[in-house]
Amino acid sequence: MKTVHVGILGLGTVGAGTAQTLLQQRDLIRARSGVDLVLKRAADLNIDRDFGIAFPEGVLTSDAGEVLDDAEIRIVIELIGGTGIAREFILRAFAAGKSVVTANKALLAVHGPELIAAATEAGVDLYFEAAVAGGIPIIKSLREGLVANPIREIHGILNGTCNYILTRMERDKVSFDEVLREAQDLGYAEAEPSLDIDGWDTAHKAVILAQIAYGIPITLDEVPVGGIRDIDPLDVAFAAELGYRVKLLAILRRLENTVEVGVQPALLPATHLLSKVDMSFNAVQVNGAVVGETLYYGRGAGSLPTASAVVADVVDVALNIASGAADRIPLQWAPNPPPQLLPVGERMERSYLRLPLRDRPGTLAKVAKVLGDRGITITALMQKEAHQAHEFIPVVVLTGEARMADISRALDELAAMSDVGEGIVRYRVEELSS
Amino acid sequence: MKTVHVGILGLGTVGAGTAQTLLQQRDLIRARSGVDLVLKRAADLNIDRDFGIAFPEGVLTSDAGEVLDDAEIRIVIELIGGTGIAREFILRAFAAGKSVVTANKALLAVHGPELIAAATEAGVDLYFEAAVAGGIPIIKSLREGLVANPIREIHGILNGTCNYILTRMERDKVSFDEVLREAQDLGYAEAEPSLDIDGWDTAHKAVILAQIAYGIPITLDEVPVGGIRDIDPLDVAFAAELGYRVKLLAILRRLENTVEVGVQPALLPATHLLSKVDMSFNAVQVNGAVVGETLYYGRGAGSLPTASAVVADVVDVALNIASGAADRIPLQWAPNPPPQLLPVGERMERSYLRLPLRDRPGTLAKVAKVLGDRGITITALMQKEAHQAHEFIPVVVLTGEARMADISRALDELAAMSDVGEGIVRYRVEELSS
Repeated sequence: MKTVHVGILGLGTVGAGTAQTLLQQRDLIRARSGVDLVLKRAADLNIDRDFGIAFPEGVLTSDAGEVLDDAEIRIVIELIGGTGIAREFILRAFAAGKSVVTANKALLAVHGPELIAAATEAGVDLYFEAAVAGGIPIIKSLREGLVANPIREIHGILNGTCNYILTRMERDKVSFDEVLREAQDLGYAEAEPSLDIDGWDTAHKAVILAQIAYGIPITLDEVPVGGIRDIDPLDVAFAAELGYRVKLLAILRRLENTVEVGVQPALLPATHLLSKVDMSFNAVQVNGAVVGETLYYGRGAGSLPTASAVVADVVDVALNIASGAADRIPLQWAPNPPPQLLPVGERMERSYLRLPLRDRPGTLAKVAKVLGDRGITITALMQKEAHQAHEFIPVVVLTGEARMADISRALDELAAMSDVGEGIVRYRVEELSS
Repeated sequence: MKTVHVGILGLGTVGAGTAQTLLQQRDLIRARSGVDLVLKRAADLNIDRDFGIAFPEGVLTSDAGEVLDDAEIRIVIELIGGTGIAREFILRAFAAGKSVVTANKALLAVHGPELIAAATEAGVDLYFEAAVAGGIPIIKSLREGLVANPIREIHGILNGTCNYILTRMERDKVSFDEVLREAQDLGYAEAEPSLDIDGWDTAHKAVILAQIAYGIPITLDEVPVGGIRDIDPLDVAFAAELGYRVKLLAILRRLENTVEVGVQPALLPATHLLSKVDMSFNAVQVNGAVVGETLYYGRGAGSLPTASAVVADVVDVALNIASGAADRIPLQWAPNPPPQLLPVGERMERSYLRLPLRDRPGTLAKVAKVLGDRGITITALMQKEAHQAHEFIPVVVLTGEARMADISRALDELAAMSDVGEGIVRYRVEELSS
């Protein structure tokens, strides 16, 4: 039986859950994996709180140095978060020959390539299962379970707050603002919700998935990001009538010589399993060239679900250490030739359009001509009879696949027409194979 | 870059897919994992077929000994199937210090403990991801991704043929026999379908899951197994009216000092994601004490989906060999104290009952009394008005949770009543948390 000492930096929600899991499941982990994980130190700036955890004598410390400078500690669990001191501590751990497990998606999305290079140089491990989709073992599945698969596509519902809001908007026909306020009252959403609802949290995870699945060291600023702040319940309802549900998706796709990576709200067929992922759950659908479609579902956040992934990483790294094989699986891989990121304008997308059209003869024909001139086909059209007099009537159009640059130009042209009112709405329509 | 030579025994559907994947994805695997997998030999009794694969010169052989006796081959991929010669070849491989990857669920379900002991003694690996749920990395997720989780429950849809038949029966309101015949014509079901439709294939997988999740070395003959052969479209329709769908499930559950393991058709709430797994897809829902509910979905059979899992195992074992750490994760683990298998009569289940009742006053009261006397509560009841004269009217009852021994006795008592006709139907009702 090999003993591996570990230390935690940061005892917030996830840190406390991780400490609790390490202590409570020590026997189970020892029985299953053959390594004995000893939590030697857990550091937090404020240790005068009641964590509700029976820390053994001497484990709690307010000095991160007691983790980083302890030669016996071989694995540092970084759960401070943010891109500042966390980065410094991780680099210090690498320099001391320690491996690192982290749940810090923001740090990885911004400094991932730097950190991976530093870990590789030091010959240690950097594991981060908990950074994407919380307790769902999606990183392990991509890196190991699907290692023989060229990854064709990934569709991820990766932010529980957004999925909760969209589920409630559809189910209860309430507005975005109303659900958000309620979610904030219940503690499901942050007081400053932008990271979640504007898509940035999902984008962090998309960047990490792109590095794992495609070996491309992109960073956050290269990824087009959309959020759900402006979604109107009207469009959620129209989508439902057409057989679709609206989800905030991370979409990754391998094309000929390029990779598409982005975050945006999209309409998914209501019959597809991914569209049935409700409330605060996360799910990742992976289309591999050998295995076909696979899907992974579970809790994407929360103290214990995230701790489950953190501790699994710790066991993995401890097994590497115990067998003298740190850096067992390369942290970075480079496809040859490396694919380029697809420019947004080159993306091929189907579109859901809601067009406010003047209720007079010939308007629809003009709209169809503008779309047709750009090679954009109409696959479905829905216009409800107006029961009151309105200057503009909402007409919903689903289009075939078209280049985003062509769609943008067509929408500019439509917006300039006197028969088209203000507030054209557009969302991606994503058909999924299964 | 470490090179690892591998050999295949058996070039049937999965064997051919595995050979193809090893050859086609060699560069990808090398880039991602840092090991170069060389397919040195592939043995089959009949190599005069066109496999549609560009085997390099000298790889194909009709002599299994050329795989088993080749000192350079470190990993033997056993894809012969069955419990006879496959077992002998695997033991020979272990004796020669070779690790083994297999998809042979029948062999593992019957001789699993013996093979695991032999591998452990030889200090080599025995991996079998492809034996459960085909391309879905469920074994890896349970052993590694959820290593910190005491496993509360597992619910698995593990046989694509059964799930295809049940999906079609519900969707198209056709009989079991009709769908089976059609599935056989299309090649989805075997000419001798018993292994699938009587639940044995699912039971093989349940046994393997029990070994992985609970460390109990049970074998096939200890598991109660039910199939779908007798399912009446009437019950599928009644279940749907009550908000349920019928699925053939492997159910595993940790109780106080026991583990429940079994295979049976069961009603699942139609709102739950697992009940939305349709056609020939597989899915496994795992409830871990730390992570909560997780679900894994994908193709459970087929040449390439299964090959995806086989090759992932080969990479894992090759990484162990490359880093000098064979047997990195223990093949067997023993919880202390080891839990016992729950006897069938002690199982607590909710029930769906269809009772043919004589259409006269007081019958229902008598039925309710028989159930009530055994402590079985009625939670829902459905009786349709008879539009024609029948001696017996089908009455559907959903019950609360009760000991199976009590349910059996109550059903015996009901069957003996003159007001109850022949052909009482009973299925388990499984509520799932989410």
